[in-house]
Amino acid sequence: MNKEEVPDIIISRLPIYLRALRRMNAEGKLTTSSQELGAGVGISAAQIRKDLSQFGEFGKQGTGYDIAFLIDQLRKILNVERVWDVVVVGMGDMGHALARYQGFRDRGFRVTMVFDNDPAKIGEQVGHFVVRDTEEIVTAIRDSGIRLAMLCVPAAAAQEVTNLLVEAGVKAILNYAPINLSVPAGVQVQYLDPSTGLQRMTYYLD
Amino acid sequence: MNKEEVPDIIISRLPIYLRALRRMNAEGKLTTSSQELGAGVGISAAQIRKDLSQFGEFGKQGTGYDIAFLIDQLRKILNVERVWDVVVVGMGDMGHALARYQGFRDRGFRVTMVFDNDPAKIGEQVGHFVVRDTEEIVTAIRDSGIRLAMLCVPAAAAQEVTNLLVEAGVKAILNYAPINLSVPAGVQVQYLDPSTGLQRMTYYLD
Repeated sequence: MNKEEVPDIIISRLPIYLRALRRMNAEGKLTTSSQELGAGVGISAAQIRKDLSQFGEFGKQGTGYDIAFLIDQLRKILNVERVWDVVVVGMGDMGHALARYQGFRDRGFRVTMVFDNDPAKIGEQVGHFVVRDTEEIVTAIRDSGIRLAMLCVPAAAAQEVTNLLVEAGVKAILNYAPINLSVPAGVQVQYLDPSTGLQRMTYYLD
Repeated sequence: MNKEEVPDIIISRLPIYLRALRRMNAEGKLTTSSQELGAGVGISAAQIRKDLSQFGEFGKQGTGYDIAFLIDQLRKILNVERVWDVVVVGMGDMGHALARYQGFRDRGFRVTMVFDNDPAKIGEQVGHFVVRDTEEIVTAIRDSGIRLAMLCVPAAAAQEVTNLLVEAGVKAILNYAPINLSVPAGVQVQYLDPSTGLQRMTYYLD
């Protein structure tokens, strides 16, 4: 299957299904239905069935989904059976929080390097890491083959750092800086700007 | 105009346009085109024109958009001409980062209270705030009329705290906890789970 053939909006829902299924699994549940899963994630049962049908037949009429099996399948589809190394660039408050974040465990990711360009921060210990100089970013990332980065630098520096990440071979950037990034084809960016998230909701408030 | 009539996917793009326009404005630019704005945010010019046309006629044939005017209009539409007070619940690393985050300034938000249920954290100074006891959450939020919250508690506590926020009158929650929340109609949730953001991208990587 060509990965581009499945609409990205469907891909965006798969991690949410996976997260909810893992939670059910941790609670000891063995099977679920599209109705139950849908109620848990706020998505209709029909949408869930349609989304999953893009990738195969995962449920059985009458018995629903085997949770452990569907978790395995979704991890395969999302490519998180393996553990991906991730770098964090920008050791302000947000970068610190991500470098120490426990929530990547069991989700397919681990932070392995952190960078900053501030001489006062370079060499500092953050969680398990020693902050490295952003000047080393291209060689360090290229040598280690890392392809994922989380970007927590100020907006004014974000494009410049992005260019370095792209040069180093990074293919996916989770961007916390409140600015749109220009990247070449083949490099993905997801945006996690809190103000943007809030503004999307205040539209509906009086 | 009934706010529900405009598709939410369009609303989700307006903060991105606003952010890019503010940046152009800060750089001293006076006018822009849907082509230029689109190139900056990675969205087609046609889509931008279509999105904005839901709310009126903002551009002029030949001269494009007056940036300051369009910023004003988008701030009105998104309801961020005013400044919204926001609470942060959960003073772990992420909550700390949000309590001290400078990026809300000029985007329509200001953090005004922070909460935690850990006796070791209650009373602690974080940025400009003294951490308050989560037990006070309903009365404190209700008394102040706050309707926005950022949720940074562990997944296991997130639904319980959400119930308190809803009881207190909160109508919009930015959720950093890696779990789906059940909320009644009229309460919105946006999710900013970094693992979910990364998994959405690893799908496309080999």
